[in-house]
Amino acid sequence: MRILGIDPGIALTGFGIVESDKNGIRAGSYGHISTESGTPMPSRLKILYDDLIKVIDEYQPDIVAVEELFFNKNAKTAIIASHARGVIVLAAVNSGLDVAEYTPLQVKQSVAGYGRASKQQVQAMVTSLLRLKEIPKPDDTADALAVAICHANSAEMLKRQI
Amino acid sequence: MRILGIDPGIALTGFGIVESDKNGIRAGSYGHISTESGTPMPSRLKILYDDLIKVIDEYQPDIVAVEELFFNKNAKTAIIASHARGVIVLAAVNSGLDVAEYTPLQVKQSVAGYGRASKQQVQAMVTSLLRLKEIPKPDDTADALAVAICHANSAEMLKRQI
Repeated sequence: MRILGIDPGIALTGFGIVESDKNGIRAGSYGHISTESGTPMPSRLKILYDDLIKVIDEYQPDIVAVEELFFNKNAKTAIIASHARGVIVLAAVNSGLDVAEYTPLQVKQSVAGYGRASKQQVQAMVTSLLRLKEIPKPDDTADALAVAICHANSAEMLKRQI
Repeated sequence: MRILGIDPGIALTGFGIVESDKNGIRAGSYGHISTESGTPMPSRLKILYDDLIKVIDEYQPDIVAVEELFFNKNAKTAIIASHARGVIVLAAVNSGLDVAEYTPLQVKQSVAGYGRASKQQVQAMVTSLLRLKEIPKPDDTADALAVAICHANSAEMLKRQI
């Protein structure tokens, strides 16, 4: 199974491919999509959508796993990030793919073993689990791989339960 | 100028056409797009996007005016509504149209003359300004027409300043 993990954001959206089969997981390509802060919001959303469609076309994932947004207080930041996430989910659906959604807590628990793991701990685990030579940069890319690993683990657990 | 006004929401998105020319403004078609609460979010976003593309294809507006979201406290509600709004803005841009954005305050000031106007006052003004026989229902449809009127007024003021 080829999983495309995504850490959504308007300025930076991380993406990462994780291949999962009976031999375990390994990293495929990963990177990020960026949009400039001076660009009007409608154009930023189009850039993000078009670039993500290209990523999906190029890597042909079987499923897209997208991290959920969590905001405790700042509704303004939540509104902007959620515009981006809506467009990301649409790009997956319009490519005929299912979308799996995981909360930041689920991702941390799955990758680092506990929900209060620090960003650095999660990144170190991603690097270790995927046997990468260095921590993927920017952070959003490592986070995207973490979401993909989380989905690989969930899918594996579901299989064992059947 | 044919303006498509939109009041965004995940369950109900209102839309309304307002024609604006030297003789003033008049209403074109208006209605709403709805998605069922039991439907998964990715599918709801796709329904909203596809239906709005159809509305744009059918009515061929010159511009799309979309109300901005305002949430003081509830980030969770803001996140869901903003997913929908992101997809709405994308549908306009992907149809080659410019997007004008107005805050609820701007819409109320423009249509009812002051920013603290009640929902009922705004709806009564929409009905009166567009010489409609009755208040458009649901509320989201009347609100969409209000956003379109707001854009017509703004465009008219810009013209006078030149």
